Amino acid sequence: MSTSSDLSPPPPSLLRPLDFPHKVLMGPGPSNCPPRVLAACALPMLGHLHPEFIKIMDEVKEGLKYAFQTDNTWTFVISGTGHAAMEAACSNLLEQDEVALVCQNGIWGERFADMVERNGSVAQKLIRPMGEVFNLKEIEEGLQKHKPKILFITHGESSGATAQPLEGIGELCHKNNCLLLVDSVAALGGVPMYMDKFGIDVLYSGSQKVLSSPPGASPISFSNRAREAVLNRKSRCRSYYFDANELANYWGCDDKPRRYHHTAPITSVYALREGLARLAELGLEESWKNNKVCAEQLWEGVEKMGLELLVPQKELRNPCVTAIKVPDGVNWKDVSDYAMKNYRVEISGGLGMMAGKIWRVGIMGYNATPDNIRLVLRGLKEGVENCKK
Amino acid sequence: MSTSSDLSPPPPSLLRPLDFPHKVLMGPGPSNCPPRVLAACALPMLGHLHPEFIKIMDEVKEGLKYAFQTDNTWTFVISGTGHAAMEAACSNLLEQDEVALVCQNGIWGERFADMVERNGSVAQKLIRPMGEVFNLKEIEEGLQKHKPKILFITHGESSGATAQPLEGIGELCHKNNCLLLVDSVAALGGVPMYMDKFGIDVLYSGSQKVLSSPPGASPISFSNRAREAVLNRKSRCRSYYFDANELANYWGCDDKPRRYHHTAPITSVYALREGLARLAELGLEESWKNNKVCAEQLWEGVEKMGLELLVPQKELRNPCVTAIKVPDGVNWKDVSDYAMKNYRVEISGGLGMMAGKIWRVGIMGYNATPDNIRLVLRGLKEGVENCKK
Repeated sequence: MSTSSDLSPPPPSLLRPLDFPHKVLMGPGPSNCPPRVLAACALPMLGHLHPEFIKIMDEVKEGLKYAFQTDNTWTFVISGTGHAAMEAACSNLLEQDEVALVCQNGIWGERFADMVERNGSVAQKLIRPMGEVFNLKEIEEGLQKHKPKILFITHGESSGATAQPLEGIGELCHKNNCLLLVDSVAALGGVPMYMDKFGIDVLYSGSQKVLSSPPGASPISFSNRAREAVLNRKSRCRSYYFDANELANYWGCDDKPRRYHHTAPITSVYALREGLARLAELGLEESWKNNKVCAEQLWEGVEKMGLELLVPQKELRNPCVTAIKVPDGVNWKDVSDYAMKNYRVEISGGLGMMAGKIWRVGIMGYNATPDNIRLVLRGLKEGVENCKK
Repeated sequence: MSTSSDLSPPPPSLLRPLDFPHKVLMGPGPSNCPPRVLAACALPMLGHLHPEFIKIMDEVKEGLKYAFQTDNTWTFVISGTGHAAMEAACSNLLEQDEVALVCQNGIWGERFADMVERNGSVAQKLIRPMGEVFNLKEIEEGLQKHKPKILFITHGESSGATAQPLEGIGELCHKNNCLLLVDSVAALGGVPMYMDKFGIDVLYSGSQKVLSSPPGASPISFSNRAREAVLNRKSRCRSYYFDANELANYWGCDDKPRRYHHTAPITSVYALREGLARLAELGLEESWKNNKVCAEQLWEGVEKMGLELLVPQKELRNPCVTAIKVPDGVNWKDVSDYAMKNYRVEISGGLGMMAGKIWRVGIMGYNATPDNIRLVLRGLKEGVENCKK
């Protein structure tokens, strides 16, 4: 046995307490959590198969069915953040050499295509610049040309700040023997969503956006059509951790006794339960309305100060993430730093092709208040005035 | 736009507050979290690239290097629970058709082999019954016979309750051009671990065991040899979410600026930081000693009441998880239920081949106290007396 002299010493940084400021997170997420969610994070631990925890899991499922507006049996939670849910959707639906048609109008389509290729499947793309959305005609042509097994599209694009109209896409997909997969990480709860009515086959989201919970537990739901596709795979899912068949069992979505598959992130599930409970109390329509009202307040304020929005058409803007063009002669980062330094409010920059060209403001759940919008507008206005090059 | 009449209503179960009892979790994990960890879970949210959060990430890395006793640059956290770290290890190290030699003396070897096969790689096995460990001779023979790229072995087997002696295995592996991968989910912090000295190439653990944090953020470390293997892959990692190359960058383990790869589970990282800070304050040797003292108290108490331990050799027992044989004429579940009902203390059952045949008692971090051991012994003794068939 080794003795103490062999041990490298404990790091001094860990002998000081945690200490950092409170910020108003008005970027594209994570957003601030309401007190009831934070309180839930600090509740005592339960085992991952204890009856009390199973009750909480069941409540989460009910809450997700409400938030998604679905009756899908396979509605559960991936034990990771939004990208984990994206990867779960990809790796469960696609087998080797199968084709996905990926609508790419921002970084989410790009990331999904990357996952498709890593999975050994084939990604075909429909491409639009950030700030634009897809129409039914081009989608139909893409379906007919590529005959994909699945179509991927982003509901709330957080990099291009668009809200994709979803009506009609499910019908087109099903007519072409294709499953519709929708990423609603940056829209769910803030933009109307009717999973079943829209004919969506796989829908996933994150916890840290409109649901106002910490990142770490990501909702997902599979239509019966998608479930059948998973159950009829020829090969097993590449991933054990994301295997929907196993997860559905652990989440009590089949008629077999729950098996131990992995240890769920217990407190993240508590927190998601509280985020969903908040949404249930508020009501979906009120949540959608809140977001719309705050977004319009932001858009008016921004235009009033002479700035331009990336997405000209109001009805195509994502009310959860607004993109504002950075005017000539201004460095986006200086303004963002100014707002943080003076008002402790986060205003983010662009991603990918839009880096340096836009600011992004998130309006999500608990943070969707007129006060917060005024704070953003104040930080932005003063920042631009003070940071001209 | 759809109207309110289209909406399915919010679930009544979410309109009631969360309510469940406090339990003493003396199973194989999750274990109870100390107040400082729970308090950290409820701290305000930060962005995943904010400087304050990066500082916390850096402190976590320092804490992990201490806990693992390693200088590895690639020491970071997987954004998921223990199985996620296992899958990350597998999918980063192995490519199509490459061979892993898996030491299986419980369910962890079995699970790892499952992951290997899903990954398109080949799992060869050395098999021992639960409760036994591997010796250097059979490992050397296995290495020579199968010429694997990696050897997988479990440090603290939580299903068979063994602690695998690790000295010498790294040397054998390296002599045979093989990487050594060790699962220390159910041992780290409770059993001496010297990653570098033992020549371990990939080591991972969980947060919810001896580190006394909630599940959801799982430590992992790669030796330079393992890092080179990842960097020299011919194909990309099957998984985007678990891609070590990307994660190492996000965790500041290379010399490039940190890129946005995914959103980390912010509060789970706060909690892990506090769990590691607690370990740093206590000191590794004190933590190992605590575990040993409590485990010996448990073993003596159990043997005094006439029960038998699964692992006869004291030096091969995992001090973090003890397995106790269920005597004839007793139903394990009745005893476990008795202890929970009367003392709110969790005593778990067996997994896999050992289901129904053993009880498992976890002794982990914050829960490793003489009081808790007495509570377990009381629940077990009274339970056995009251639950004879």
